[in-house]
Amino acid sequence: MAGGLMSDVVVQLVIPIAAVIGIIFSLFQWYLVSRVKLFGEREHGVGAESKNGLNDYLVEEEDGLNDQNVVNKCAEIQTAISEGATSFLYTEYKYVSMFMGIFAVLIFLFLGSVESFSTKSKECTYTKGRMCKPALANALFSTISFILGAVTSLVSGFFGMKIATYANARTTLEARKGVGKAFIIAFRSGAVMGFLLAANGLLVLYIAINLFKIYYGDDWEGLFESITGYGLGGSSMALFGRVGGGIYTKAADVGADLVGKVELNIPEDDPRNPAVIADNVGDNVGDIAGMGSDLFGSYAESSCAALVVASISSFGMNHNLSAMLYPLLISSMGIIVCLLTTLFATDLFEIKDVKDIEPALKKQLIISTIFMTIGIIIVSLVALPSSFTIFNFGDQKVVKNWELFFCVAVGLWAGLIIGFVTEYFTSNAYSPVRDVADSCRTGAATNIIFGLALGYKSVIIPIFAIAMSIFISFSIAAMYGIAVAALGMLSTIATGLAIDAYGPISDNAGGIAEMAGMSHRIRERTDALDSAGNTTAAIGKGFAIGSAALVSLALFGAFVSRAGIVVVDVLTPKVFIGLIVGAMLPYWFSSMTMKSVGKAALKMVEEVRRQFNTIPGLMEGTGKPDYASCVKISTDASIKEMIPPGCLVMLTPLIVGTFFGVETLSGVLAGALVSGVQIAISASNTGGAWDNAKKYIEAGASEHARTLGPKGSDPHKAAVIGDTVGDPLKDTSGPSLNILIKLMAVESLVFAPFFAKHGGLLFTWFQ
Amino acid sequence: MAGGLMSDVVVQLVIPIAAVIGIIFSLFQWYLVSRVKLFGEREHGVGAESKNGLNDYLVEEEDGLNDQNVVNKCAEIQTAISEGATSFLYTEYKYVSMFMGIFAVLIFLFLGSVESFSTKSKECTYTKGRMCKPALANALFSTISFILGAVTSLVSGFFGMKIATYANARTTLEARKGVGKAFIIAFRSGAVMGFLLAANGLLVLYIAINLFKIYYGDDWEGLFESITGYGLGGSSMALFGRVGGGIYTKAADVGADLVGKVELNIPEDDPRNPAVIADNVGDNVGDIAGMGSDLFGSYAESSCAALVVASISSFGMNHNLSAMLYPLLISSMGIIVCLLTTLFATDLFEIKDVKDIEPALKKQLIISTIFMTIGIIIVSLVALPSSFTIFNFGDQKVVKNWELFFCVAVGLWAGLIIGFVTEYFTSNAYSPVRDVADSCRTGAATNIIFGLALGYKSVIIPIFAIAMSIFISFSIAAMYGIAVAALGMLSTIATGLAIDAYGPISDNAGGIAEMAGMSHRIRERTDALDSAGNTTAAIGKGFAIGSAALVSLALFGAFVSRAGIVVVDVLTPKVFIGLIVGAMLPYWFSSMTMKSVGKAALKMVEEVRRQFNTIPGLMEGTGKPDYASCVKISTDASIKEMIPPGCLVMLTPLIVGTFFGVETLSGVLAGALVSGVQIAISASNTGGAWDNAKKYIEAGASEHARTLGPKGSDPHKAAVIGDTVGDPLKDTSGPSLNILIKLMAVESLVFAPFFAKHGGLLFTWFQ
Repeated sequence: MAGGLMSDVVVQLVIPIAAVIGIIFSLFQWYLVSRVKLFGEREHGVGAESKNGLNDYLVEEEDGLNDQNVVNKCAEIQTAISEGATSFLYTEYKYVSMFMGIFAVLIFLFLGSVESFSTKSKECTYTKGRMCKPALANALFSTISFILGAVTSLVSGFFGMKIATYANARTTLEARKGVGKAFIIAFRSGAVMGFLLAANGLLVLYIAINLFKIYYGDDWEGLFESITGYGLGGSSMALFGRVGGGIYTKAADVGADLVGKVELNIPEDDPRNPAVIADNVGDNVGDIAGMGSDLFGSYAESSCAALVVASISSFGMNHNLSAMLYPLLISSMGIIVCLLTTLFATDLFEIKDVKDIEPALKKQLIISTIFMTIGIIIVSLVALPSSFTIFNFGDQKVVKNWELFFCVAVGLWAGLIIGFVTEYFTSNAYSPVRDVADSCRTGAATNIIFGLALGYKSVIIPIFAIAMSIFISFSIAAMYGIAVAALGMLSTIATGLAIDAYGPISDNAGGIAEMAGMSHRIRERTDALDSAGNTTAAIGKGFAIGSAALVSLALFGAFVSRAGIVVVDVLTPKVFIGLIVGAMLPYWFSSMTMKSVGKAALKMVEEVRRQFNTIPGLMEGTGKPDYASCVKISTDASIKEMIPPGCLVMLTPLIVGTFFGVETLSGVLAGALVSGVQIAISASNTGGAWDNAKKYIEAGASEHARTLGPKGSDPHKAAVIGDTVGDPLKDTSGPSLNILIKLMAVESLVFAPFFAKHGGLLFTWFQ
Repeated sequence: MAGGLMSDVVVQLVIPIAAVIGIIFSLFQWYLVSRVKLFGEREHGVGAESKNGLNDYLVEEEDGLNDQNVVNKCAEIQTAISEGATSFLYTEYKYVSMFMGIFAVLIFLFLGSVESFSTKSKECTYTKGRMCKPALANALFSTISFILGAVTSLVSGFFGMKIATYANARTTLEARKGVGKAFIIAFRSGAVMGFLLAANGLLVLYIAINLFKIYYGDDWEGLFESITGYGLGGSSMALFGRVGGGIYTKAADVGADLVGKVELNIPEDDPRNPAVIADNVGDNVGDIAGMGSDLFGSYAESSCAALVVASISSFGMNHNLSAMLYPLLISSMGIIVCLLTTLFATDLFEIKDVKDIEPALKKQLIISTIFMTIGIIIVSLVALPSSFTIFNFGDQKVVKNWELFFCVAVGLWAGLIIGFVTEYFTSNAYSPVRDVADSCRTGAATNIIFGLALGYKSVIIPIFAIAMSIFISFSIAAMYGIAVAALGMLSTIATGLAIDAYGPISDNAGGIAEMAGMSHRIRERTDALDSAGNTTAAIGKGFAIGSAALVSLALFGAFVSRAGIVVVDVLTPKVFIGLIVGAMLPYWFSSMTMKSVGKAALKMVEEVRRQFNTIPGLMEGTGKPDYASCVKISTDASIKEMIPPGCLVMLTPLIVGTFFGVETLSGVLAGALVSGVQIAISASNTGGAWDNAKKYIEAGASEHARTLGPKGSDPHKAAVIGDTVGDPLKDTSGPSLNILIKLMAVESLVFAPFFAKHGGLLFTWFQ
């Protein structure tokens, strides 16, 4: 069993260098985005250095626009959105921090109690006869890495939001120059977020491992066990981010649409609508900050799952650091690959027409996948020993380095398949969405029926893709294979995030154009950007769900290993009741989040109606709406309503593990995984399809579409109802379910030593 | 290990006697129903003996009604409905018979090939050293019992439909005398069906066992293995009945409502609506014949599961017949208990007011459950030996007779809990439905969001109830415990079916009243009957789903035993991919059935619109609609559309078992079970809630309800959209999912010997 070709010193250098390159690239993109403003500053001198620095000035103005006025208006709106988002995130983070503090204490107490807070070293679990660090140390370091993960996730989400609210008005202003320019700004801004997140996540993880190693030394079992806290921290934050942000954005969106579009027949993002600012803030706190935290969590968890499984394989036993850090090397390679891929969108090709946008974004996915495949071959051959053994629930399994390549690659390509299937079912270029649009002829009811059927149908191929990746990677390298398959799917995360963040930025840009009263031509361009963003958002969700399924399974496997279970037998009652109850949890969770959005939207509707009824001249545009009260409704609702679903997810593994033991908990994890992934996929695709069916009718781009439109026709009204129903499905409950399945798995893994020792109280009491 | 208190001879007498009592009671109820007509015959002599014998005449007529005219009108409508239903069922059965024929051949070929069609006796699987009948005999007898089950199911559905279409106009006519009289007729008709089904199912099974025993003699393994074909036959028929009937009824219902109620603002069941006959036919072929086949299937399967598991326990080994036939004794006791219970509704109490109806029906459930608990104690103590051993995946488990009582009782009471939870979430007497109704204020979108959330929420307690029954009964008596728990839940099937069939009969009665132009007062009474029927239908579906979950698990356990698997380990890739793909199947299936209803409804809408546009005077009531063309659309659509979902369910176990082997198939069964049960519960409760939310607004019975109404108001329109979306959920895809999970399990069980011997081809080829 030979070592890899790379020496440990090289590995130790390659990872941070890749991370730093990612960060520098990200900052460079930011600089390019900020040049939109710099030009203005040069022209206007000191006066332009206002608080938000947004008094942009453009050389190639379109005629017929009162330039400075429009720019000022955009700046004003952007400030309002940015301030709203910042203030909401501060409030959200305040509450979440309290929760995190309590949970950190719980982690310490539960894990410390495993060996009764003894400071004595204990025998290692896997390397028999060797001494490992005390359980108390693992408790402490798990707590620290939990906090580290939570803070990194928080910072990732926050920066994402800052970048997005920095870029949205700039995209609007660039749209005056043409669709290509606007696209580049929106895409670069997305790239800032994508690269910052990917590189930051990698760097923090790398530093944490190296710092922890100073204490742990040879005890890699303890070291990587503690590191899993990083994944837990990341995902816990992501849960609150997704749920809180999701409720915020959809309460505002649904509320704004129900009164504005349905009752008063005023356009989306009309500045007269009091909920419009809340709606735009929502895009940034939900789709940007929430999604950033979510994908960061997936990335952190899949790395942790791979590391903890590897630590009990021959890599860990032989202290082969470069092989051990294979997951981090894959991510490093991912950053470099995505960097090259980005150049294809921003520098090597140019968007000249509206219809070039979607292909350009899709090309990003294909290019990054092809490049990454080559990257994986290189990393696998260079970093891994030619053959090594993997722990497989009591057994050992010999794996060759080129075999592991297939595990990573199968995940990567399964991701692409899921992405394209998602596109097929949610883009209005294909028949499924057009059928849904067509069903609006007979009203909202058939639209809903067809949309639900479409969502159900859209799970078939993704599930087969996931099942095939699981089968191949599991057959090759057991749970380690699945962990690296998940990592493979997430290896192009920087590009995925860039594409994903591009959507809400374009959406906001459109909103700002409307509110600033810009010409119809500009709005058309931002709408085209936004429509492509809708599809890419669905693709991004597909990736997030697919990777969540693989990550959860890998974490589940790691948990089972760590808890000392060799078999999870469905035919035992303990496991089966876990399985059926676990399969129920996504429904329980969705019922909470859906109802929360519904309730908050009802309040929003009442407030918007109240303002239209009581503020004189609001409808005529002479009165000014009270945006702040709508922002407050969304904020209050999301803070209040995110607690119960959050507790359901966070407490279930603790309660089940403590009272019913590890077998039942295994059942719960497996059940939640196999059931949750279906609802998540169908919910987000149904929602995406309804949204684009509506856009299809509105755009009227084909003969068929025009027979259904125009805006305000009966079929269009039916389509708007579908879109509204889809909002909480696709942006609140659907994507939160990824986190539910991942988080329960990683939490079980972190608490596994406690459950294995003290779990199953109920059965102990009764027997 | 002593035998039970009952001698074999007594047992052999008790079962057929109970069955015959059930049949006689059923015929007596029919006689009582038919007396409504008899009276008319006595008065009118020969003239009343028209073809359909429906020219009823009533002594205590209400004033102001042109008696003979109305009666003739009712008779005419009933004939139309009855003829439509009969003709549809003939068409359906013609196609299904072909399928059944092919499938019977498949069973014979697959099972015969296990020992290469050898006619030599083989060593028994469980009682080592003893000789059992050849596999070819098992193939033959399995095929015979498959056909027997299919025919019994077919006859059950057909008779149910005949009774329902015989009783609906009688209920309408009795409604002129008062709500109590009408209730009794509708309830008695339901009882005819309930008792006929339960007694018939028991009797056929009993006779089959005794006839098969003539050949099998001592080989009980082979005997009861062959008998499982009965369950498969019953369930296969049920699948097509449910899916075909479900598509028929909902295509007609949705189509009729979308044009009639939404576009033209004419009332439900208005005779001017061309789809109205198709709609009423649908109630009888879907809700009556489909549901009858479904519950008969559940009953047959749970009996077969219990018998096959018992045959490899000490009952089978020791040839203890009275203990062996314990499942049939429970069912016999159930018939007697339900008979007593029925008297409480028809003879001991009287319905005087509309508000007495729902409590009277609920009381039926409670009374039958309490009586049955006592019945189970008696049967358990008398029929079972005081202690016996049960096969538990390789282990043996000693069980006492009073312990087995708890298994049956826990199933029985879990059924009651599920029933009441279902009622809470679907009756408009409680806050969940009222909240949904309230959300109609802000339009259809919030109604849909709240309804979906309600459905998701309604799974929580039923799943806990099912999980608890599984845990308790499994802990006591392994898979046998679960099988008898399922039987416990179904032991009061006669009452359950009576209540369930009561609903569509009342619904039809209302339709006939409307079409015959009867007074508003009559329609109010039938509406009250119908509204209570809506809730009891939901309760019935709750029972069907809960028992399906238990039955499937028991069948799954029997399959695993039969296939020689000792462990179904989620941590092996073969099982896990089965689990995740299995969890996807209910979505695939639902996407097909939902889309089928949607498509058929669109066609129906077009036809109805066409008729209103082209037939002169139709809207004014002077032209006559072309009912037949709507009936044809529903018929064609349901025949054509039931094939793909039917094939999905029937072929999946065959394909998975043959190509992927028994481990993957186990995963598929477990996955489909834990995922399908959730969708089934949430779909049928969401649909029930929307239906009753609409009724709540229409009835305007409270201050709150009146602020939402009246009919035609915006909230009411929103409620109608919800109701329409709910139709395919609650009556097509939801209830079909029970059958999906049961059928795949029983089919796997029947084919288990083949899969165990020749299954997993794909892995054999590649390894």
